[in-house]
Amino acid sequence: MSEIRKNLISCEYVVIAPERAKKPEDFVSPPKGGPLPEHSEKCPFCPGNEAMTPADTYRFPASGPWQLRCVQNKFSALSPEGELWNRFGTLRQSTAGVGLHEVIVETTKHNVSLGLQPPEVIRRIVRTYHNRFTAFHKDPRISHVIVFKNHGPAAGTSLQHPHSQVVGLPLIPAQVRFRSEEALEFYSDTGSCVVCSTVEDELSDFSRVISDTVHFCAVIPYAALSPYHIWILPKRHGGCFGEATEEELDDLAGLLGNVLGRLYKGLNDPSYNLVIRSSSPSESGARHLHWYLAIVPRITRSAGFELGTGMYINSSLPENSAEFLRNVNMG
Amino acid sequence: MSEIRKNLISCEYVVIAPERAKKPEDFVSPPKGGPLPEHSEKCPFCPGNEAMTPADTYRFPASGPWQLRCVQNKFSALSPEGELWNRFGTLRQSTAGVGLHEVIVETTKHNVSLGLQPPEVIRRIVRTYHNRFTAFHKDPRISHVIVFKNHGPAAGTSLQHPHSQVVGLPLIPAQVRFRSEEALEFYSDTGSCVVCSTVEDELSDFSRVISDTVHFCAVIPYAALSPYHIWILPKRHGGCFGEATEEELDDLAGLLGNVLGRLYKGLNDPSYNLVIRSSSPSESGARHLHWYLAIVPRITRSAGFELGTGMYINSSLPENSAEFLRNVNMG
Repeated sequence: MSEIRKNLISCEYVVIAPERAKKPEDFVSPPKGGPLPEHSEKCPFCPGNEAMTPADTYRFPASGPWQLRCVQNKFSALSPEGELWNRFGTLRQSTAGVGLHEVIVETTKHNVSLGLQPPEVIRRIVRTYHNRFTAFHKDPRISHVIVFKNHGPAAGTSLQHPHSQVVGLPLIPAQVRFRSEEALEFYSDTGSCVVCSTVEDELSDFSRVISDTVHFCAVIPYAALSPYHIWILPKRHGGCFGEATEEELDDLAGLLGNVLGRLYKGLNDPSYNLVIRSSSPSESGARHLHWYLAIVPRITRSAGFELGTGMYINSSLPENSAEFLRNVNMG
Repeated sequence: MSEIRKNLISCEYVVIAPERAKKPEDFVSPPKGGPLPEHSEKCPFCPGNEAMTPADTYRFPASGPWQLRCVQNKFSALSPEGELWNRFGTLRQSTAGVGLHEVIVETTKHNVSLGLQPPEVIRRIVRTYHNRFTAFHKDPRISHVIVFKNHGPAAGTSLQHPHSQVVGLPLIPAQVRFRSEEALEFYSDTGSCVVCSTVEDELSDFSRVISDTVHFCAVIPYAALSPYHIWILPKRHGGCFGEATEEELDDLAGLLGNVLGRLYKGLNDPSYNLVIRSSSPSESGARHLHWYLAIVPRITRSAGFELGTGMYINSSLPENSAEFLRNVNMG
């Protein structure tokens, strides 16, 4: 019989139904089309095509040919200019669509995958996540910043050139507020942060741990919402990604590369979304808030059941997924 | 500039960004492949193939050849047999994967679309929704029942033969609880049910109304989460779909056929999810709870931003979408 597990961090239930589908190998992505070129003349993110995008907001290195660059998202739904306003009617509430939205062009190469990049490239990308997160929060109109990456067609990416995105919102999403309220309740009930407790529990149980470093551990959540859903959890308590030290960021980059490499090799480069969930710097000291990074491979499709309940059905056993990823041959 | 609207019923914000994309016509689905056959030998839901499914749990008519039948979902993640148990650890909470999951085979014909069915067929389907909803709630293990339909490949359907689904869960999803809490807060603040207030407001404004009957109104929500997201809202207050009268159900069927017909003709049969959101009969008298039906066309794909925030970006203006659907030629 299947089992319904409660995800204490997202607060939602997941039906874990491994008998419905199968062995870890059943989630390996089908073969892709032919290889991509290293450079594409039509790609706005390839070197030589800089005029197809807005100007840099950040670049590395600071001068000479770039290896990484950030630009405003030309097709953002949010406007970087303009005053923040709110209209509070009883039934119709609205806020100005002001906000920041940048694309991080991760590399000059059109055809590489983040999980196979050299460590120094991943370190640069993670440091850039941190740089833009911090810069966005300096804008007084911004209440919440989300860093994310859509990799592969099933994850909703529209451009193949490796890139991540950062969005600064003029409000706090209800989902974020709801999770914060639940985390506060957990803290009130137990005297402990739910992420700190989870880290301790996962490291002592170890059946869902993929890999573990000085500052982070990568686990398949007990109530993973889909096959190979992964959390990278900081061991040190802290609500805000912006408070991570340089040493921690470099350690995170190493673990991220390791985990994405395992996904690439073990599952043949699946589509995935990567998200950094963090509070704002103003809440960095809160005892109940703890930032982390999530990776959700897009192996299954959500439909009416997920829409109408917020719940998910996961046809794999998290313990089996973790074991499979631990054993991927990384040679 | 775009505008961020708050959806008071889902409680989440939506970035309404109509300048990002376009005219209502831009959401018309591309042409499909060739027509489907009226009968398929391999389809488990076609007449003659009844042995490919479990036995009927409900059928119409009661004897003679069936025109509609309900069967257990053979691939359900939930088991209809077994005791309900709960394990409440601090960090790992789980519940037995018991529950009910049926498929409603809507018609004998393999190749029809619900939006083009004759009124008596849609009435029968809506009455069957009600019958199964009520029957599921008689099982003491069931806390929450969701009725839904996945239409088309982008909506996650795996079988083309027209069908809906009903799931009975042994717990209340966190999303449902969260919305209930928010609706209670609205009631406390205003002395009114948020859906009743919305119905009144939409009917007086009328810019987002698609169609309106004695007992229901169909609207594009002020903060529609995607292009052509539709609510069919009961005018009479009530938390539970099970309390709808036969007259109301038949009226709902008429409006549902009208709205789905407009989607079919105006947008060339888009994929969509349909969901009935309802409380259980035990809460039917609650002043803050009000059941309704939602239709979400799957025209856009969610990615890292939606996953990480719970928010949506809607590249259409709800008022324009409603006007477009009002003006579809139904002749």
